[in-house]
Amino acid sequence: MDQSASSAAREAATSESGGTAPTLHVCVTCLAGEDRETVPRAGRRLHDGLVDALRRQADPATFRIVEAECLSNCNRGCSVALSGPGRWSYVYGDLNQTSVDDLLAGASRYAATTDGLVPWRERPTIFRKGVIARVPPSI
Amino acid sequence: MDQSASSAAREAATSESGGTAPTLHVCVTCLAGEDRETVPRAGRRLHDGLVDALRRQADPATFRIVEAECLSNCNRGCSVALSGPGRWSYVYGDLNQTSVDDLLAGASRYAATTDGLVPWRERPTIFRKGVIARVPPSI
Repeated sequence: MDQSASSAAREAATSESGGTAPTLHVCVTCLAGEDRETVPRAGRRLHDGLVDALRRQADPATFRIVEAECLSNCNRGCSVALSGPGRWSYVYGDLNQTSVDDLLAGASRYAATTDGLVPWRERPTIFRKGVIARVPPSI
Repeated sequence: MDQSASSAAREAATSESGGTAPTLHVCVTCLAGEDRETVPRAGRRLHDGLVDALRRQADPATFRIVEAECLSNCNRGCSVALSGPGRWSYVYGDLNQTSVDDLLAGASRYAATTDGLVPWRERPTIFRKGVIARVPPSI
């Protein structure tokens, strides 16, 4: 993990939104069907690819990228979760490093909502086909 | 839906915990493989069974039961989600009306935690086998 990039993204997101920025959790322990001895793991490679790509973007981040250990979607990893205060949470699966650009675009659209509900037509294909489950906002 | 029972459960949960009680969302639109014309739907029957059973319990509820429309787990419904401020959220599937007692027991154990992490051995079998995904707490 590139700690400095992750910290920068987190700080930018916090600064942008006054602390209510959503989070893109990435399962870094996911094997995605690979051998347990493969290093770095598929989930770690996805996480690092996301952090690197976010760092290269010109605009300040509107969401955080945070590591998670297991999102309990092991049969359809790699997995990420989008969540934030007052928003619906979504878990997506069937992801890999080719998903990076679409994931960042989808997370940006999610961050632009107040409730987490992105219109269907604006969702990247990986979100339409790879949705695993969603959770209503905590009340 | 039995509105009075649901309201009573909600009020009890709120009173118990100072407003931080977790929520058991139940997808009431789930067909669970049944014909679309079947009324009430499988998800609605599960919801109503949970509300009725919670009402019969002697102890005050420590969690709310709230209706949801689609938890995006249609292939493995019926579905519920457990969530609450500061807690991991969990989505469970493969549920039906025989799951009611175990669901209430599992939700009570979840409500007794501060982070949503119930030790593996204390989780009902339906939670161990039917977990669909989980989401870290919002930060």
